Amino acid sequence: MIHRAALGMGIRRPLARLMSAAAEAQPLGFIGLGNMGGPMAKNLLKAGHEVVGFDVSRANLDSFQAAGGSAVESPLAVARRAKTVVTMLPAGSHVLQVYSGVDGLLAQGGADAGSLLIDCSTCEPAIGQEVARLASLQGATTVDAPVSGGTPAAEQATLTFMVGGPEVAVRQAEMILRHMGKKVIHCGDAGMGQAAKLCNNLVLGITMAGVCEGHALADRFGLDQKKLAEILNISSGRCWSSEVYNPCPGVMEGVPAARGYTGGFACDLMLKDLNLAANAAVVSKPKLGLPMGGLALQMYSQMSARGDGMKDFSGLYPHIAGEKKS
Amino acid sequence: MIHRAALGMGIRRPLARLMSAAAEAQPLGFIGLGNMGGPMAKNLLKAGHEVVGFDVSRANLDSFQAAGGSAVESPLAVARRAKTVVTMLPAGSHVLQVYSGVDGLLAQGGADAGSLLIDCSTCEPAIGQEVARLASLQGATTVDAPVSGGTPAAEQATLTFMVGGPEVAVRQAEMILRHMGKKVIHCGDAGMGQAAKLCNNLVLGITMAGVCEGHALADRFGLDQKKLAEILNISSGRCWSSEVYNPCPGVMEGVPAARGYTGGFACDLMLKDLNLAANAAVVSKPKLGLPMGGLALQMYSQMSARGDGMKDFSGLYPHIAGEKKS
Repeated sequence: MIHRAALGMGIRRPLARLMSAAAEAQPLGFIGLGNMGGPMAKNLLKAGHEVVGFDVSRANLDSFQAAGGSAVESPLAVARRAKTVVTMLPAGSHVLQVYSGVDGLLAQGGADAGSLLIDCSTCEPAIGQEVARLASLQGATTVDAPVSGGTPAAEQATLTFMVGGPEVAVRQAEMILRHMGKKVIHCGDAGMGQAAKLCNNLVLGITMAGVCEGHALADRFGLDQKKLAEILNISSGRCWSSEVYNPCPGVMEGVPAARGYTGGFACDLMLKDLNLAANAAVVSKPKLGLPMGGLALQMYSQMSARGDGMKDFSGLYPHIAGEKKS
Repeated sequence: MIHRAALGMGIRRPLARLMSAAAEAQPLGFIGLGNMGGPMAKNLLKAGHEVVGFDVSRANLDSFQAAGGSAVESPLAVARRAKTVVTMLPAGSHVLQVYSGVDGLLAQGGADAGSLLIDCSTCEPAIGQEVARLASLQGATTVDAPVSGGTPAAEQATLTFMVGGPEVAVRQAEMILRHMGKKVIHCGDAGMGQAAKLCNNLVLGITMAGVCEGHALADRFGLDQKKLAEILNISSGRCWSSEVYNPCPGVMEGVPAARGYTGGFACDLMLKDLNLAANAAVVSKPKLGLPMGGLALQMYSQMSARGDGMKDFSGLYPHIAGEKKS
């Protein structure tokens, strides 16, 4: 509590902290301080909150501490210090581990009736529902709040959160999430934040592949690519992937296609989300076939297998149209 | 010329005709007076033009005559009477026949250096390029001007024309096309109107299937469908198919999904366009694979095979999600 006491003395106390009663009363917890979680936790610190953090990586913890965070040794230790805890983890298996492991958030002496646990990881809606159930056994409340927007949005606090959970908990979580993002969308009960994200990214993965094929066909027809984009964007082919994030080089400035498909939303992350969607469809009742989603998954898999998994997902375009030999 | 002379007497002469010098000077030709061409020709008549028409169907000709058109016995007879001729035919084979058949537009005594031939049919860009070449041998000019918007847009004169051809010819054609539609987009040289339409509809066929899969997955997750549409429309899954023409019943009013998928853009017409795109890709140099377009083609084929070919293409949704038994 030394860190809190020091801040409490009013030295270098930021304005935002003065304005936030919650920040005075309670430190926040943050688990998973990597590429996304690291900058998100730093935005909570910038907003004047005391933040108690944990990560399995020593380097991530060091960076967090250098920014003013307090490092502890386990998720349980975070839950002991903080009533509101944000988690940002690579996959559902890590979420289950961090929540219900032996030194997890829900272990004895950890989260209780006063706790709000906000999971920003992307995973199956069923995981969000399971941790909600486990937490409720101890009276704790959870919301699932996966994000859209990549590392730059995490750094600039412009993420969008799709949130599932009880109305009151979502409103409470929103006060924290607003420090890390611009939009907070309440999607329904537990798991519905995850559901909304997976459905959106399923549509996105398919439409991006569709726009890539449209531009590839235009290439063969000899149709001007800027002209095609202009036509799509005032016609029924209009979509975010054509209008905001066009995958064809030479059509737009400031998008990954204009800089060799660096930055942006990695192919491997799209692949992860399409795989979650496909797996969810297989185990759903009644079962669901996703032919387009399944094919898109295989196309991004091929792109990754050819060595472009870290490139932006719009880099599918040259894989379809054929690389220009220069 | 009796019809023209009668109109020339000023009896029941519409205002629009008075305002149009071109209409005074020259009758227009129209070939293909079916579901689309019929209402399009009637809009030219309404605008005060004299229209000389041909169709292989007697019933279509009768309806055209009843609206004030002059019926003749062949495309050649149309070209003899009219310097500007619009064609609206089911497929490329009909276009070639109407242009270069023995009594076609380009037969002896038909189209010449003063003629402008406007083909509004949807077919391969190569057909547009071939008729442009054949017409140029006689000094005649062609533009390809396929439409988007179905029968209602043809009736209400709200079609969009995607036009390929020389700049001057396109401007000349635009004066006529404006009587039948709202938007005229110059896409490039001969064939590029067709190219733009096929590329747009390739993207459309794929994105619609993607939105159907997104809503089908939401159904299994128990995510509210209106909520999903709302989220898609402010996120990266946003597209015309989610925003303007949502395929999931209960999400929007006034779309085919709200009336059992009647009206709108028939599955079989989408199938035709996807097939044209797929065939063009196969014969292109270098060859082009369209995995997503090919799969979408098969999915709309299945929908048609199950008896829903005349339903709107957004009726793919129940084929993916499973029909609710009521």
